[in-house]
Amino acid sequence: MRIETDCIGKLAIDDQALYGIHAARAQQNFPITTERMAPALIRSLVQIKKAAAEVNCAAGTLTVPKRRAIIAACNQLLLGQHADSFIVPAVQGGAGTSANMNVNEVVANLAHRLTGVKIHPNDDVNQSQSTNDTFPTACKMALRQQLPDLQVALGQLVQTLLVKAKRYQDALKVGRTQLQDAVPTTFGHSFHAYCQLFKRDLGRIQRAGAQLAAVNLGGTAIGTGINATRYYQTHILSVLNRNTHLGLTAAPDLIDATQNCDAFVTFSAALKTLATDLSKFCNDLRLLASGPQAGLAEIQLPAKQAGSSIMPGKVNPVIPEVVNQVAFEVIGNDVTVTMAAEAGQLELNAFEPIMIRALLESESYLQHAITTLVQNCLRGVTVNRRKCAAQVKQSTISATVLSPYLGYETTTALIKEALASHVTVPDLLRQRHLLPTATIDQLFSPAGLTQPRTATTSAVDAL
Amino acid sequence: MRIETDCIGKLAIDDQALYGIHAARAQQNFPITTERMAPALIRSLVQIKKAAAEVNCAAGTLTVPKRRAIIAACNQLLLGQHADSFIVPAVQGGAGTSANMNVNEVVANLAHRLTGVKIHPNDDVNQSQSTNDTFPTACKMALRQQLPDLQVALGQLVQTLLVKAKRYQDALKVGRTQLQDAVPTTFGHSFHAYCQLFKRDLGRIQRAGAQLAAVNLGGTAIGTGINATRYYQTHILSVLNRNTHLGLTAAPDLIDATQNCDAFVTFSAALKTLATDLSKFCNDLRLLASGPQAGLAEIQLPAKQAGSSIMPGKVNPVIPEVVNQVAFEVIGNDVTVTMAAEAGQLELNAFEPIMIRALLESESYLQHAITTLVQNCLRGVTVNRRKCAAQVKQSTISATVLSPYLGYETTTALIKEALASHVTVPDLLRQRHLLPTATIDQLFSPAGLTQPRTATTSAVDAL
Amino acid sequence: MRIETDCIGKLAIDDQALYGIHAARAQQNFPITTERMAPALIRSLVQIKKAAAEVNCAAGTLTVPKRRAIIAACNQLLLGQHADSFIVPAVQGGAGTSANMNVNEVVANLAHRLTGVKIHPNDDVNQSQSTNDTFPTACKMALRQQLPDLQVALGQLVQTLLVKAKRYQDALKVGRTQLQDAVPTTFGHSFHAYCQLFKRDLGRIQRAGAQLAAVNLGGTAIGTGINATRYYQTHILSVLNRNTHLGLTAAPDLIDATQNCDAFVTFSAALKTLATDLSKFCNDLRLLASGPQAGLAEIQLPAKQAGSSIMPGKVNPVIPEVVNQVAFEVIGNDVTVTMAAEAGQLELNAFEPIMIRALLESESYLQHAITTLVQNCLRGVTVNRRKCAAQVKQSTISATVLSPYLGYETTTALIKEALASHVTVPDLLRQRHLLPTATIDQLFSPAGLTQPRTATTSAVDAL
Amino acid sequence: MRIETDCIGKLAIDDQALYGIHAARAQQNFPITTERMAPALIRSLVQIKKAAAEVNCAAGTLTVPKRRAIIAACNQLLLGQHADSFIVPAVQGGAGTSANMNVNEVVANLAHRLTGVKIHPNDDVNQSQSTNDTFPTACKMALRQQLPDLQVALGQLVQTLLVKAKRYQDALKVGRTQLQDAVPTTFGHSFHAYCQLFKRDLGRIQRAGAQLAAVNLGGTAIGTGINATRYYQTHILSVLNRNTHLGLTAAPDLIDATQNCDAFVTFSAALKTLATDLSKFCNDLRLLASGPQAGLAEIQLPAKQAGSSIMPGKVNPVIPEVVNQVAFEVIGNDVTVTMAAEAGQLELNAFEPIMIRALLESESYLQHAITTLVQNCLRGVTVNRRKCAAQVKQSTISATVLSPYLGYETTTALIKEALASHVTVPDLLRQRHLLPTATIDQLFSPAGLTQPRTATTSAVDAL
Repeated sequence: MRIETDCIGKLAIDDQALYGIHAARAQQNFPITTERMAPALIRSLVQIKKAAAEVNCAAGTLTVPKRRAIIAACNQLLLGQHADSFIVPAVQGGAGTSANMNVNEVVANLAHRLTGVKIHPNDDVNQSQSTNDTFPTACKMALRQQLPDLQVALGQLVQTLLVKAKRYQDALKVGRTQLQDAVPTTFGHSFHAYCQLFKRDLGRIQRAGAQLAAVNLGGTAIGTGINATRYYQTHILSVLNRNTHLGLTAAPDLIDATQNCDAFVTFSAALKTLATDLSKFCNDLRLLASGPQAGLAEIQLPAKQAGSSIMPGKVNPVIPEVVNQVAFEVIGNDVTVTMAAEAGQLELNAFEPIMIRALLESESYLQHAITTLVQNCLRGVTVNRRKCAAQVKQSTISATVLSPYLGYETTTALIKEALASHVTVPDLLRQRHLLPTATIDQLFSPAGLTQPRTATTSAVDAL
Repeated sequence: MRIETDCIGKLAIDDQALYGIHAARAQQNFPITTERMAPALIRSLVQIKKAAAEVNCAAGTLTVPKRRAIIAACNQLLLGQHADSFIVPAVQGGAGTSANMNVNEVVANLAHRLTGVKIHPNDDVNQSQSTNDTFPTACKMALRQQLPDLQVALGQLVQTLLVKAKRYQDALKVGRTQLQDAVPTTFGHSFHAYCQLFKRDLGRIQRAGAQLAAVNLGGTAIGTGINATRYYQTHILSVLNRNTHLGLTAAPDLIDATQNCDAFVTFSAALKTLATDLSKFCNDLRLLASGPQAGLAEIQLPAKQAGSSIMPGKVNPVIPEVVNQVAFEVIGNDVTVTMAAEAGQLELNAFEPIMIRALLESESYLQHAITTLVQNCLRGVTVNRRKCAAQVKQSTISATVLSPYLGYETTTALIKEALASHVTVPDLLRQRHLLPTATIDQLFSPAGLTQPRTATTSAVDAL
Repeated sequence: MRIETDCIGKLAIDDQALYGIHAARAQQNFPITTERMAPALIRSLVQIKKAAAEVNCAAGTLTVPKRRAIIAACNQLLLGQHADSFIVPAVQGGAGTSANMNVNEVVANLAHRLTGVKIHPNDDVNQSQSTNDTFPTACKMALRQQLPDLQVALGQLVQTLLVKAKRYQDALKVGRTQLQDAVPTTFGHSFHAYCQLFKRDLGRIQRAGAQLAAVNLGGTAIGTGINATRYYQTHILSVLNRNTHLGLTAAPDLIDATQNCDAFVTFSAALKTLATDLSKFCNDLRLLASGPQAGLAEIQLPAKQAGSSIMPGKVNPVIPEVVNQVAFEVIGNDVTVTMAAEAGQLELNAFEPIMIRALLESESYLQHAITTLVQNCLRGVTVNRRKCAAQVKQSTISATVLSPYLGYETTTALIKEALASHVTVPDLLRQRHLLPTATIDQLFSPAGLTQPRTATTSAVDAL
Repeated sequence: MRIETDCIGKLAIDDQALYGIHAARAQQNFPITTERMAPALIRSLVQIKKAAAEVNCAAGTLTVPKRRAIIAACNQLLLGQHADSFIVPAVQGGAGTSANMNVNEVVANLAHRLTGVKIHPNDDVNQSQSTNDTFPTACKMALRQQLPDLQVALGQLVQTLLVKAKRYQDALKVGRTQLQDAVPTTFGHSFHAYCQLFKRDLGRIQRAGAQLAAVNLGGTAIGTGINATRYYQTHILSVLNRNTHLGLTAAPDLIDATQNCDAFVTFSAALKTLATDLSKFCNDLRLLASGPQAGLAEIQLPAKQAGSSIMPGKVNPVIPEVVNQVAFEVIGNDVTVTMAAEAGQLELNAFEPIMIRALLESESYLQHAITTLVQNCLRGVTVNRRKCAAQVKQSTISATVLSPYLGYETTTALIKEALASHVTVPDLLRQRHLLPTATIDQLFSPAGLTQPRTATTSAVDAL
């Protein structure tokens, strides 16, 4: 054991440990959960340390041997080595200071171990930096790093829906508004509508993700840039971008960017909107697939696992169900992020750790949920065309097409009669000679039932 | 009393009433609140009826006398007359059908009363329309109509903050992170940071408002456009835009636009983000103005009313407080909107009435809250420059500027000593001859304390 | 116009107005909404003023003529007169001070007008009181006053469900888990289950309401009771209870009761739980009533209004729909209340006005929503016994009863075969002679399908 | 590898694996997170399996060798062995079926491995059970098992606050309402108020926990108890209670208890209320400890770690900060639980897995957060008595005590003058001979400032 000292006092640290007193104290102070900081977050902090060493050296405030030592350490860490040295719990007080300190310590100790050069965690590794600019920058980096995976998953959802829309473009079905039978539509229409919805989500996610590009790196403690050199300020992001390809930009007002978390709230809102849309979609899938005998049974989801430990042969819509649950989690996370952002005070928001945890979870859960939805469910969805077509044929509400010809009230009466007599409306019309047969046929054809009408002479005559 | 009939049966209606059986039934069915539908929503529905009459006539499906009668009625209603004829409660089942029916009935009866032409609420006034396209379209119209007022208020907030930022650009103050003294900043920086924040909100509100432009009018019952003519579909929006200047566009997929409420969720999220930012800002104002004797008392808010019924002379930050409360309301409304949007099923979301009520409230509350914040508080805010400057002078944490010269640990020791001995850090440095006087003066000057450093020889030498 | 003065300055007030300068300033400061404070809240404040006058007089700190004058004014106000004198907006800053001041002013001016005795709003009407004890006390009084109406409505829901449970106790139906066909149950079971659920809600509402009984009246400004006499403290609640029958009790720690709003959070949570349960119930009603032709159509809701402006004869489940929306509103309100409670600072929570507005709304909306649900929907619900029975007969999942006899895997195979061959499982069993006919009949009888089994010899033999 | 079969098809399973095909499919279907089910949940399921084997054997439906084999396996698992056999992800579709199946499989395979007796996962291990009764029962068991730890932590918080209240009962301080100086109080009062608050939370947690005792075990698939024997139904809980001491009771209506999740919503609400209270308390701690130089600095929190990577010597309130963040998480979790509960349909709620995950997290986080708050912060809190007493002496708002003698308006004027002239109010009173010196001394004594007044002759004379 070695003894380390900080402004609080002394602490014995395992001699082999790469972390130091600051990380060790955090572990004692925050025994909330055994979950540690997300690897993507650690990796982003290490990228910052690496870029900072390079820029500080160029600025003349860090020696070349120190730069080399720090970069060597960072490179090892970026390969995923020594991952167990990052011991700070995911849920932590201190606005990310413990996370940043842990990284400073591990880099410094590893650099020393690798090169023999003495490196100070604060004066060297953390040079020109503060937790208050590195931590939120690393949060945004981690979210942006994960984002393409979510976009790819969402893009596959959109593509799959487009394929379904084409395949079932002529599959007539009874529309339903307020769960009551409505005028007909097609499954092509339905899948296309979902497709459009998620295309919009793709745009929203992308725009919200773009707002995460503006970072406050270089602002140090409160955004004034105290202790950073101007050289560092003007060069750090280009070096970091060169190494990470994350397209970061300097926030135009670093004070603002240090204290305000609206970019996180906005990103969370975009994820929440996506979650809301996914949940609605999955509710529809589960409803349309209800049955097999006593439900709507208009579509069939691929069977993925036995559905019951007691009811043999039961198969449940487990994939949409897990998506629903992810949606509820993401919507809850949005409240957490909102409250944490609102609670920021003066020059800093101390509650970023819980925000980033919620956001990384939401982002990753949604990606995985969409992926399993596409691969394990949506691609295998089939439509029961025969049943759906038969239902449209029986449906009295299709008589809505008669309104422009017979008026709302006469049509209402006809529908009531059809329902009571179990005669279809077209047959009733024919029996009564209320309209020419050709008109009836045209009106009750698939096109007649699912498209705007061409204003015909008879319609105008009727006026 | 006159007797009216619907598919349920008969009902006696006051002979003078412009509304009819559908509105009367809604009043009986939804006794949730005495609050009625927002006038902005009614007005938007009436605008749709007016434009529809014009287009239907041009399409050849409505006679000229009927068109004239309907437009005459709409014009009276748009002047605010007969406002008490819209009796449907704000909180209603039925996806807005009762609201739309109420408008159809009032227009039809008023048209008849004004012109003697017999007008049918459904066949004529509602021609080519359904609740399912008119209601969400009217919701978006109402929100867009109110939006410029919010934008103006927000713009005034931004402007006022800019003025304050200039006025106090050199007013030094102790920065605070995690409520603990941090390195100095200026009130100019602080106000500018808030200013930037709300500029971003302005952009977010505008972009979210733009998403409300795409409407499903012409889609009728479920988006297929059944019973609308193609002529109507292609002309209705241009006429409506000509009359209202709301810049509506046809949603590219009317089926999608009829069933999905993501534009409302997105708009609510933008309002919620603004609310979160306002709340943080008002928390800061209240904190900085705490006192007058035993608080921070760095700024003074204008006194607007006596603060206590028992404590004489007490004055409270009532304007920021009401803004905080509006923020909590808006954040709660966001949950309501999210749940309502998630609950949509298949071809329609039946829960739009509660969404639009929440959204109109959020939009309007925020506008009024910002307005009173600017006019009754922010414009009169003054900074206690003397106190703030004195605090900076005493502050030991400013010694952070020494780190690049003396290192993190030596600086820590110096700060501890300064706190214990009640000697300021610069004095301590001078006593000890730790740095040249000129360097000390430069480092502890306002610029030295609030800006990035220029890497000096001594710094490089220190390496 | 008369000129009034406060610690801010002078203001002209309409000479006829009963309110004074404090209320007038509030109206200017809080132009958030035209909605004014709830009458139940005003009434509760007036009750406090009346009781305080009585007790202060008995304590020897208020003269008899003043007592008489104040009580005369309060009595008029309690009859609902001069309601338009309470001009303070519902959404207000200042922790309720404006509301309390408005009441003090109206009582003082009205007392003077009625009796000629000069009454001071603060020294006399507000004597021994502060906003900080009267306002939260009045909030709790208003909620408790409305509570019995909610309890009665909820009791009617429970009773109606019990009646339905009895009426349909033998109405077999296919159970559904995860929207997939499951083993059978009866509508009697279903209605009884809902009944039990709402009985629990009744208990929760009552227990949460009981926590609202403990008030901080007598604590004055911050709970220390400054300026109140001990006589007043020990007598005020008994007088108030005598007048109002609200069963209030003194909180054991008035400091605590002045600053903490957990009783509001708890009450909101009980309302939210009820809302959640109502929403689940209404979702079920809407699902079971889906159709009329292409849905489950197991139950029929009474038709209450025409459902569509375009689709003739359509009838929608508008009553459950409005209940769903009320639930979403109440759940959103719960977030508002939670955030407002969390935002309290030190000796007071300044955000009670938005809490009480949300709570009174939730309480009242739920009452009205349940009432219309019972009266306009639930009482008229009928079950389609024939269809349900036929579905049970066809259902292969009922074969679950065979598992103890044939094992999970054999039963799975049987079910697959039944589904493929469109032969019912009992027929298949008989064809194969897999079990004695009597056993088959017993197992597939209503009792066999919906009750625990009696372990039979054959079962044990099978081991 | 061995090949297993289910109703979907075949799958190769690692020959050494104790889990089977159902668990393996779940792992493929739900790749949302690498987090697995909580050990407490698994343990609870195993306890159910063990008790069921015992009861089924006694009922005559399970042979003695099978009972022995199952119990042997369960005993090993309850010791924590084979923990890596429970591979089902925490976030899963299927209402817990995969979790239950995983346990059935591991118990069956382990039982066979240990004893050589062939055990079927469904027919034997799951006998008389369904996921739909075992899973929610296990959820409640796990929550109840963890509950005492939370109660102990909360009890320590209450105790610690009581100690502080006694220690600082005479430590005068300026009260603050709406962050503005108010009449004085003592830190004794403040700590006692917090103490009372958390005592109420203790009661709420306990009552909400009691509602978790009622379980639906014995109800099997949908609560009708199909395939369970009556013997099992009447004996299972007593055996389970004997083994676990969790005091479970049979829900009076098993249908209801199978489909409704109100007990979870209620428990979540109690946790949320506690979280709200903790957050308010920690906000106060952080505010009162702000400084060290430019803040309120009325109390001092123990220094637990260096607060900044850039600002030497800075110490932050990291312990309250982590508690705040836990509170935001718990409040977000409450929304997740609410939405999941609301989404239940008909005979089952399929979304229990996300609920139990959120609830176990909230319960455990709160316990750990309170523990670190007590041990690492609250116990070491000290009050800056001297500063606080000096502030009270200077405070003009204390002049509130004069109102009963001089009236609200005269007192207001006095306070204004005192503030302007920097003379204390008592001195001003003495200079002006406005009240006898003895009265002034009594009124401005600690008791006079923090207690109700005794109505004195002079007060009555003043009337």
